[in-house]
Amino acid sequence: MQRPKLDWHSRDVISIRDFSRERIEDLLSQAQQIRPDSELLRGRVIASLFFEPSTRTQLSFATAMQRLGGQVIGFSGTEGSSLVKGESLQDTAKVVEKYADIIVIRHPLEGSARWVADTVSIPVINAGDGANQHPTQTLTDLFTIQKFQARLDDLKIGLVGDLKYGRTVHSLALSLTRFRQITLRLISPENLRMPPAITRELDGVVPYVETADLDLRELDVVYVTRIQKERFPDIEEYEKVKGAYVIDLNACEQLRRDAILLHPLPRVDEIAPEVDSLPQAKYFEQSENGVPVRMALLQLLLGA
Amino acid sequence: MQRPKLDWHSRDVISIRDFSRERIEDLLSQAQQIRPDSELLRGRVIASLFFEPSTRTQLSFATAMQRLGGQVIGFSGTEGSSLVKGESLQDTAKVVEKYADIIVIRHPLEGSARWVADTVSIPVINAGDGANQHPTQTLTDLFTIQKFQARLDDLKIGLVGDLKYGRTVHSLALSLTRFRQITLRLISPENLRMPPAITRELDGVVPYVETADLDLRELDVVYVTRIQKERFPDIEEYEKVKGAYVIDLNACEQLRRDAILLHPLPRVDEIAPEVDSLPQAKYFEQSENGVPVRMALLQLLLGA
Amino acid sequence: MQRPKLDWHSRDVISIRDFSRERIEDLLSQAQQIRPDSELLRGRVIASLFFEPSTRTQLSFATAMQRLGGQVIGFSGTEGSSLVKGESLQDTAKVVEKYADIIVIRHPLEGSARWVADTVSIPVINAGDGANQHPTQTLTDLFTIQKFQARLDDLKIGLVGDLKYGRTVHSLALSLTRFRQITLRLISPENLRMPPAITRELDGVVPYVETADLDLRELDVVYVTRIQKERFPDIEEYEKVKGAYVIDLNACEQLRRDAILLHPLPRVDEIAPEVDSLPQAKYFEQSENGVPVRMALLQLLLGA
Repeated sequence: MQRPKLDWHSRDVISIRDFSRERIEDLLSQAQQIRPDSELLRGRVIASLFFEPSTRTQLSFATAMQRLGGQVIGFSGTEGSSLVKGESLQDTAKVVEKYADIIVIRHPLEGSARWVADTVSIPVINAGDGANQHPTQTLTDLFTIQKFQARLDDLKIGLVGDLKYGRTVHSLALSLTRFRQITLRLISPENLRMPPAITRELDGVVPYVETADLDLRELDVVYVTRIQKERFPDIEEYEKVKGAYVIDLNACEQLRRDAILLHPLPRVDEIAPEVDSLPQAKYFEQSENGVPVRMALLQLLLGA
Repeated sequence: MQRPKLDWHSRDVISIRDFSRERIEDLLSQAQQIRPDSELLRGRVIASLFFEPSTRTQLSFATAMQRLGGQVIGFSGTEGSSLVKGESLQDTAKVVEKYADIIVIRHPLEGSARWVADTVSIPVINAGDGANQHPTQTLTDLFTIQKFQARLDDLKIGLVGDLKYGRTVHSLALSLTRFRQITLRLISPENLRMPPAITRELDGVVPYVETADLDLRELDVVYVTRIQKERFPDIEEYEKVKGAYVIDLNACEQLRRDAILLHPLPRVDEIAPEVDSLPQAKYFEQSENGVPVRMALLQLLLGA
Repeated sequence: MQRPKLDWHSRDVISIRDFSRERIEDLLSQAQQIRPDSELLRGRVIASLFFEPSTRTQLSFATAMQRLGGQVIGFSGTEGSSLVKGESLQDTAKVVEKYADIIVIRHPLEGSARWVADTVSIPVINAGDGANQHPTQTLTDLFTIQKFQARLDDLKIGLVGDLKYGRTVHSLALSLTRFRQITLRLISPENLRMPPAITRELDGVVPYVETADLDLRELDVVYVTRIQKERFPDIEEYEKVKGAYVIDLNACEQLRRDAILLHPLPRVDEIAPEVDSLPQAKYFEQSENGVPVRMALLQLLLGA
C-alpha cells in the first residue's frame, strides 16, 4: 500500500472546507487501496456518539472500525447518554476522551463538532452537525464519482431537490471548488434554492445555473437529495414541495448512458424504486463506498 | 467435528417449512458438537436488525457470533434506524447488505423476512416476523427435546396456552410433521385454538386432539406459551383468558417423572416460580440451548 | 504483575460494605499495575444490563472489558429488554447467566443487584441500584484519592451537596470507616443531610461534623455531588436547594494548594467550568480512573 503524501496523524475532520485538493486525493488514493485487516487497529477504540439516529452512518463507521480489528463504544439517541441528567456536551466529550482514541459525533446543533474538537485532544470526526457539515459523506460522494467517471475534473454535475436544507449538497458543492472545469446545475423549487453562503463561495470558481426545471440532459453526475421534513421550520412549506422533482423512469430518459445517479440515502419518494435497476443508478454502491473511505480515514488519523 | 451432510452455504432461514427432517437433524448434529472458537468467524459481521425489542433472541445471536470470534453491528427498536426518516425496509436491507455477511432480522410485519431475503444476496435469518415464524426458536426447541428425551420420534407432546397468536407453537407443530409417531394434545381456551392454517398441515400426518382441559398426563413434552397481550387486537379478549392454564405445583402433579416442561420465555404468570425447581422444568436450559443452535447455524451459513 | 493477596474468583460486588481494608488495598494495588492486554479476557463476555441510562459507567465497563480483549453484550434503557413484556428481573437474570461470564447491572430498585446475585451463579457487579450502592464508583474514588494524596489514612475529607439522596457519598463515607485518622466534614443544606443509617455507622469510628457552611479550608479532599433532581420525591424541595453550594473560583480560594476536588460526574451547575483549569480539579482524572479500577476487578473476578 502506497504511503500517504500528507500528514494526517491526529487531525480533526470537521468541515470539507478544511480539505485541499491534495488532501482529498490523498484520502481517496488510500481508500482505493484499503484492505480489511483485523490486526491493524487492534486495541484501538472509537467512541460513536450519535445524539441523532442514523443507521447508515453509524453502521458504516462501526463496520469500518471492525474490519480493521478495532472496537466501538458509544450510544445512539439521547436516551443512552448522561445528557438527560443535564450534562454539557463538553463534559461528555472530556469524559469520553479518556476512554477512546477517536470521537465520531453526530449532533443536531450546528458547530457542535468543532466545539467538541476544541475541547478534547483526540481526533474528532464530524458525522453531521445539524444542517451544517457531513464531510465523510462528501468524501464518499467524491470517491464514488471518481470510481465511475475516472476523474474529478471536467464534470457537469446536477444537484437536485432540497438545496436549502440538505447539508450533503452544501458540502459537495464546496468540495467541487477544489477541482477544474466543473459546471453545476442547481435544480430546486424556488424556495429551496442553494443558500447564498454557499453560492458566494462558488462565484468565480465554479460556474453554475439555478433552475426550477428538472433538466438532466448532458449531465455526468445527477445528485438527488431527500426533501428533509425535519429541517423545515414550517410543515406547510414541506407539503408544498414534497414530491416535486421525483426521479422516475420517465425522467431518466433524459440521462446520458454514462451518467451516474447518486443519492446520499435514505430516500423516501425522490427516486422511484424501478429506477434502481437502471445502469446509471449507483446510490447503493455509493452507500457501500462509505466503508472503505471511513476505513482509510480511521487508519490515517490513528497513524496505523 | 463431523462435516455437515447437506449444503448450507448462503441459505436463508425464513420458515421452518423449508426444513426437511434431514436438514433439521444435520443442524442439530452440528449444534451438539459445536465448541467456542474465537478464530472461526473472525472478521465476519452479522447485522442484527431488531425493529422490535427482544432481549433473549438478540443476546443469544450476539453471544453465538462472539463465541465464534465474529462481530455484530445493528440496532434494537426503531429509534436507531433510518425508518424514522421514512426509508423502506428494502432500502435499509440493500444498504446493510454491503456492510455485513448475514442479516438477522426481527420485524413486526408478517412476511418481512422473506421480503428482505428476496432483496439481498447475503443470507437472511428470520428472528421473528410478527405472528408468523421464528425458525431458530423451533430449532432450539427440537434440540432441547432431543437432548432430554433422546429422540424426536414417538413422542406425546402437549402445547398449552395461546395457540392462536403464539408463533412458536405454530412453528413447532409444523416441524413435528417431519417426524414419526408424534401425537399432539392442543390445550387452549376455545377462542385461542390453533389456526386452521396450521391444523390443515397436521391433518393425516400428526394425530392431534384439541381440548380446553389442562390434562398433562402421559405427555413426554409439555410446551407452555405466554398469553401475548400485544398480539390481541382486543384488550377485553385478553383479560378474559389471562391466567387460564397457569402451571403451578398442583398442575405439575400430573406430570410424568420423565416429562419435560418447556417455555420459549419470557413468561409472565403462566408458570409459577416454585415450579422452576422441579426436575421436569427445562425452560432455562432451553433458553441456553439457543446459543449452540445459533452458533451452528451461523457457522454453516458462512461456510466456515 | 504482583499476584492478588486475597481470593477474588467469582465473588459478587454488590456493596462497599463487603469490602475490608485489605480487600480494598488489594484491588487498588492490582489497578495500579493493570495494562491493556487484548488477549487476557479473550472469549469472555460481560452482560451489561442498564435498566437506567448511564453513559459514563456503561462506557467505562465496556472500555475496560475491550482493553482486556473481552466482549460486551446487553442493553441500555428498558426498551431493549423483555421487561416490556412483563418478565421478572430474576427470569431475565437466569437467562442472561447462560450467555455471559459476569453480569453488570444498573437498576432503579434498591436491593435489585443483591437479588440478582442471589439468583445466578456467575459474579454480579452492582453498577448502581437506586439511591443505595455503587461500589465501583467508590473504589474509583479511593483509587483517585490514593493516587493524588499518596495515602488513604490521615485525611480531612469534605462531602458537599446532596448528602441525602447521593449514593456515591453514602458509599464513600462507609468505605472510609476502613481507614485510620479520617475526619469528615458533611456540608449540606439542612434538608439534604446524610441519613442516620449512614451516620450511625460513622459514630465512634470516623469523627464528623455536619454543617450548612461551605467551609473548604484545611480539607485534603473536597467531594462534590450533584443535586439529583430525579431522586427528589417533590419538585419544590428540589427547586429550593438547587444552586446551593456552587463551587466557583471564589469558593476555591479557600482550597489548600494540595487539596483535590472530586465529583462523580455528570455535573450540572455545582462546579463552575472555570474551575476545571485549577490544579486541584481532578474530576476528569477521577472519571478516567474508572477504567483501570474496573479492568482490575473484571480480571480478578474472572480469575484471569
